Amino acid sequence: MVIVLRPQVSAEQTKQVLTAIQEGGHTGYQAGPSTIVVPKNDVHLEASLASLPQVEQVMAIDSPYPLASRAFKKEDTVIDVRGHIIGGDKVTVMAGPCSVESLDNLLEIAETVKAAGGQFLRGGAFKPRSSPYSFQGHGEEGLKMLAIARDKTGLGIISEVMEPDKVALVSEYVDILQIGARNMQNYPLLREAGKSGKPVMLKRGLSGTVDEWLMAAEYILAQGNPNVILCERGIRTFETATRNTLDLNAVPVVQSLSHLPIIVDPSHGTGKSAFVRPMARAGVAAGASGVIVEIHPTPAKAWSDAAQTLDFDEFRALVDDVERISAALSASRPLVHA
Amino acid sequence: MVIVLRPQVSAEQTKQVLTAIQEGGHTGYQAGPSTIVVPKNDVHLEASLASLPQVEQVMAIDSPYPLASRAFKKEDTVIDVRGHIIGGDKVTVMAGPCSVESLDNLLEIAETVKAAGGQFLRGGAFKPRSSPYSFQGHGEEGLKMLAIARDKTGLGIISEVMEPDKVALVSEYVDILQIGARNMQNYPLLREAGKSGKPVMLKRGLSGTVDEWLMAAEYILAQGNPNVILCERGIRTFETATRNTLDLNAVPVVQSLSHLPIIVDPSHGTGKSAFVRPMARAGVAAGASGVIVEIHPTPAKAWSDAAQTLDFDEFRALVDDVERISAALSASRPLVHA
Amino acid sequence: MVIVLRPQVSAEQTKQVLTAIQEGGHTGYQAGPSTIVVPKNDVHLEASLASLPQVEQVMAIDSPYPLASRAFKKEDTVIDVRGHIIGGDKVTVMAGPCSVESLDNLLEIAETVKAAGGQFLRGGAFKPRSSPYSFQGHGEEGLKMLAIARDKTGLGIISEVMEPDKVALVSEYVDILQIGARNMQNYPLLREAGKSGKPVMLKRGLSGTVDEWLMAAEYILAQGNPNVILCERGIRTFETATRNTLDLNAVPVVQSLSHLPIIVDPSHGTGKSAFVRPMARAGVAAGASGVIVEIHPTPAKAWSDAAQTLDFDEFRALVDDVERISAALSASRPLVHA
Amino acid sequence: MVIVLRPQVSAEQTKQVLTAIQEGGHTGYQAGPSTIVVPKNDVHLEASLASLPQVEQVMAIDSPYPLASRAFKKEDTVIDVRGHIIGGDKVTVMAGPCSVESLDNLLEIAETVKAAGGQFLRGGAFKPRSSPYSFQGHGEEGLKMLAIARDKTGLGIISEVMEPDKVALVSEYVDILQIGARNMQNYPLLREAGKSGKPVMLKRGLSGTVDEWLMAAEYILAQGNPNVILCERGIRTFETATRNTLDLNAVPVVQSLSHLPIIVDPSHGTGKSAFVRPMARAGVAAGASGVIVEIHPTPAKAWSDAAQTLDFDEFRALVDDVERISAALSASRPLVHA
Repeated sequence: MVIVLRPQVSAEQTKQVLTAIQEGGHTGYQAGPSTIVVPKNDVHLEASLASLPQVEQVMAIDSPYPLASRAFKKEDTVIDVRGHIIGGDKVTVMAGPCSVESLDNLLEIAETVKAAGGQFLRGGAFKPRSSPYSFQGHGEEGLKMLAIARDKTGLGIISEVMEPDKVALVSEYVDILQIGARNMQNYPLLREAGKSGKPVMLKRGLSGTVDEWLMAAEYILAQGNPNVILCERGIRTFETATRNTLDLNAVPVVQSLSHLPIIVDPSHGTGKSAFVRPMARAGVAAGASGVIVEIHPTPAKAWSDAAQTLDFDEFRALVDDVERISAALSASRPLVHA
Repeated sequence: MVIVLRPQVSAEQTKQVLTAIQEGGHTGYQAGPSTIVVPKNDVHLEASLASLPQVEQVMAIDSPYPLASRAFKKEDTVIDVRGHIIGGDKVTVMAGPCSVESLDNLLEIAETVKAAGGQFLRGGAFKPRSSPYSFQGHGEEGLKMLAIARDKTGLGIISEVMEPDKVALVSEYVDILQIGARNMQNYPLLREAGKSGKPVMLKRGLSGTVDEWLMAAEYILAQGNPNVILCERGIRTFETATRNTLDLNAVPVVQSLSHLPIIVDPSHGTGKSAFVRPMARAGVAAGASGVIVEIHPTPAKAWSDAAQTLDFDEFRALVDDVERISAALSASRPLVHA
Repeated sequence: MVIVLRPQVSAEQTKQVLTAIQEGGHTGYQAGPSTIVVPKNDVHLEASLASLPQVEQVMAIDSPYPLASRAFKKEDTVIDVRGHIIGGDKVTVMAGPCSVESLDNLLEIAETVKAAGGQFLRGGAFKPRSSPYSFQGHGEEGLKMLAIARDKTGLGIISEVMEPDKVALVSEYVDILQIGARNMQNYPLLREAGKSGKPVMLKRGLSGTVDEWLMAAEYILAQGNPNVILCERGIRTFETATRNTLDLNAVPVVQSLSHLPIIVDPSHGTGKSAFVRPMARAGVAAGASGVIVEIHPTPAKAWSDAAQTLDFDEFRALVDDVERISAALSASRPLVHA
Repeated sequence: MVIVLRPQVSAEQTKQVLTAIQEGGHTGYQAGPSTIVVPKNDVHLEASLASLPQVEQVMAIDSPYPLASRAFKKEDTVIDVRGHIIGGDKVTVMAGPCSVESLDNLLEIAETVKAAGGQFLRGGAFKPRSSPYSFQGHGEEGLKMLAIARDKTGLGIISEVMEPDKVALVSEYVDILQIGARNMQNYPLLREAGKSGKPVMLKRGLSGTVDEWLMAAEYILAQGNPNVILCERGIRTFETATRNTLDLNAVPVVQSLSHLPIIVDPSHGTGKSAFVRPMARAGVAAGASGVIVEIHPTPAKAWSDAAQTLDFDEFRALVDDVERISAALSASRPLVHA
């Protein structure tokens, strides 16, 4: 059950609603200035809350992720990040190196993204690495380079944050906070990212079901932060021909369950550069709102993820394909999300 | 290692080659009139065979599925089934009911497939069912109905065969033998299908790796039957939001490893009708040579697989989308298979 | 719903029951002389059938595998194969080479199995191999060697059958028909094995759920053959440290759902000889009715599955461990199957 | 490569070694006072370091987790936690409620654990919950109750920590820090747990391979903290009959690769109380150094994980079984870890 309060209710009026919920034997969670979630439905409580003057609407939503659900919001969430749109029919292209390496390298990549028609520059400054002895990223220095690239190109910036304590720091530099697959269920981190108010791109965990993923998104939404972008980046299966198994089924599944935008990451999803372009095409054809890919002027020399990184020519061909498909489907019969 | 004999070598000359292989300490497997496979490479044997007059070429292929590999045949295999083309850039549409129900119902479906621009009618006569107490198909009666539908519409016919003993019977009626996911590694069946000379569509097993799938195809090819079509229909993963996980990554992976055509089955791959059209679009965008889907005039009344069956309107929208994408990508930079 | 007929009802009387079922709008499947399965429950039909003189009992079982279910039979099924017991608290040891190689080799192994306290000799004569170019087994010659080994040692014989047409042949030589993991859902084969009347060991498929496995067992039981043994031999997961993932959870799960005996195969389950003994111990501790393992006088020289094959010393240590655990748990509080 | 320094080398002498490594073109990571890890082997550097007076030994270990590997330490790591031993042949029993509920409830459970022969009390104070609207644990209040239970019983205390910032707080109260499955690759958390010097129990992630798990353990070891306990608690597979798939194969696999103790958690591994005892038995038979289980006086009323929680009788039967098996195998031929 979600209770929507009237605009500009006072803190006192909100508290009255929370008290009424408690007296009804339930717990209310405030998710932003005008939204209260009550996890369980209760027809009696529903009726009594609906009669309160400060309550605009009581929505009897039966979902483990009420705020993320289509029942809460029918229309697609569309997020405007400094003029760059994510969500709906628009196809957004995010690209950049796996790790931020040097400023020159980053600027060369950023100019290429921009010229090809991309909107966002990605690049890791804090890197989650399987081994403690691998390069862990440039940290704040990397973030500074990303900010310089934004100033020069106007691209939006997205970069990963790995721990609650660093959310404030990373938020100073980036436009979108990325939460990586390993941290999909790092709840303290999700909560802090929610509090930051920044748009958050939440990657699906390697063994995350769609339901668990949407419940993880709910952690962010429940902090009053509506700007969550989901990113499918491959699940773990028995198949070893690809690094992971990019699960494009998740695109229509998520769209049937949730209003949140979903983009796909064929670089991590396949782990091999030869498969990135066809799977980016497939992702957009499945209905995704965008793609995020790893590119580098000389992929073989990339400090990390070399095998799955595209060169510039291949990247431009990818953007071209993605735009062709988007145009071709624009006049198609709309997909029904059900 | 694959040895290609000169055209019109005699049985005697072929035997000489097999003897030479044996004397070289290896085993040769004859795969058709002019092809011999030797599982292991051996530079000395290679040289001595190459010098034989009846040998046209010795190919030093190091693969567990030499005949299925790109090393054996660079160009895509294109199969002509009574004028209907499968393979290469052509997008083939196969559609029909899960089970053949009645002649009237089947003819109505067949006319719809034809009118929408499809090339093949699918329909189960022998049905592999998880329970011994479920409807097991009409058997030969079902095959007869399919043959009537072919006569009326000119569509090609594809239907499943489940045991070696029935290959001859099913071959009498259909244009393509389908081998189902549960039988991907049913070797006696693969061998018999190979011997039949009919085109064979081999579905990927629920837990079949791409390598195992291509080795299964090799069983058919090794009988001298080059007309194998692969069909991705979903693998088994932890995700339960879809019946199976349609693994579109397999499309570019197979195309990098093999010359055989691959089509996708989003009906079984997702198990839910709402996800069939977006995943069909995605399959073609990934580079598949076609789609196979389940359709019915009133899906809710289908005898089996109701939840994943499209109605006619949804099917026509799917064909329309698939053609749009195919057209949009026709001028795109070719994908590199590597 | 399962209808149990009175002993020695006539064919005519049985037909009357089937007719009554049909008139009640249902289908009855005769599973042996005194058992009829009706897939769906129906209280009205239940009452009317119960009143028939030839009906002993109507069991309102709601299960996709009524005959395999505990609801049908509370006590454990115990199978006596020429004096060797399988099922219940008895721990049965089956061992032998992956493939039958030569008679001498087989007899040496058989004597070792016998001396160590084993009851069954396993050995492949018809081998399902991923590649068409691998050794496919000695066929009937292999079966003959197994029969000789039985004559010399008194051990029971178990060997795999791969196609319906070969069931009669293999049944001539073996005491237990083995159906391999790849054929768990090869329904024509299951049906034929059911008709043979021989005990059947049904291995779990690589991606078979316990429910699907029990439904596959139901195919055999539905032919009136009650002697089905289940064998857990590893499922396919993401983990590559072992060849497969031996799923010992399946042991108590199966025992809670079914009365059929279950044994474990740690050789295929792990794929590495160093892990076979600890997992055999674990299997018996989990409650399995036995183990089946691959052994060879010189594992490194085995024609197939060398990496997972035990030498004789390791095998004797395994039997010793298994007996220690069995003895230690004999006085333990019984496990509750629920 | 691991460099072991002589006892009581000075900071200056250690720095000289790190400098020599850097001059040799490598990076050295100090892991405790007398251990330096160099990720890559280099025979020249090896020789030159071995000749330094402050170097006791240079170990040419080629592993992604050198400190966790058997190559670094042949004998099993045995950890003494306030007199309670974990590791080697000793079987340790840890038990307690999923969540700490009330002091009375906790004390009742603790007395039961103690009386049954258990050594550790588990209980969640900070709870990772899939939904933001579920009970998130009592926090520090829960930790205080655990400390009281320790004072009353002498049991060791283990409880989960979820974020780097809370490591110091949780360390004040518990004897072993637990890192949960969702956080197996939460590297900032692993690092902080490493720095704490407390024993750490690292649960395997739902989709963590054994290699990734040992690399995660390496993060802790690399901080100079040698007291890491691994806990297998079920992986995610396609099977839904159990909540997760307890992967007991991991027990011998880990023991072949690493010297770290491994215990098993059949409560989370199966998710159903009826399967906990047989799988605890199996875990110990596979060679695990202990079990951790969830218990409650009235499982149906537990605040979380009710379905997988044992009552006291079932728990006592479990301890009895585990001890029987441990005793039975004590005279068995030792397992070879290879």
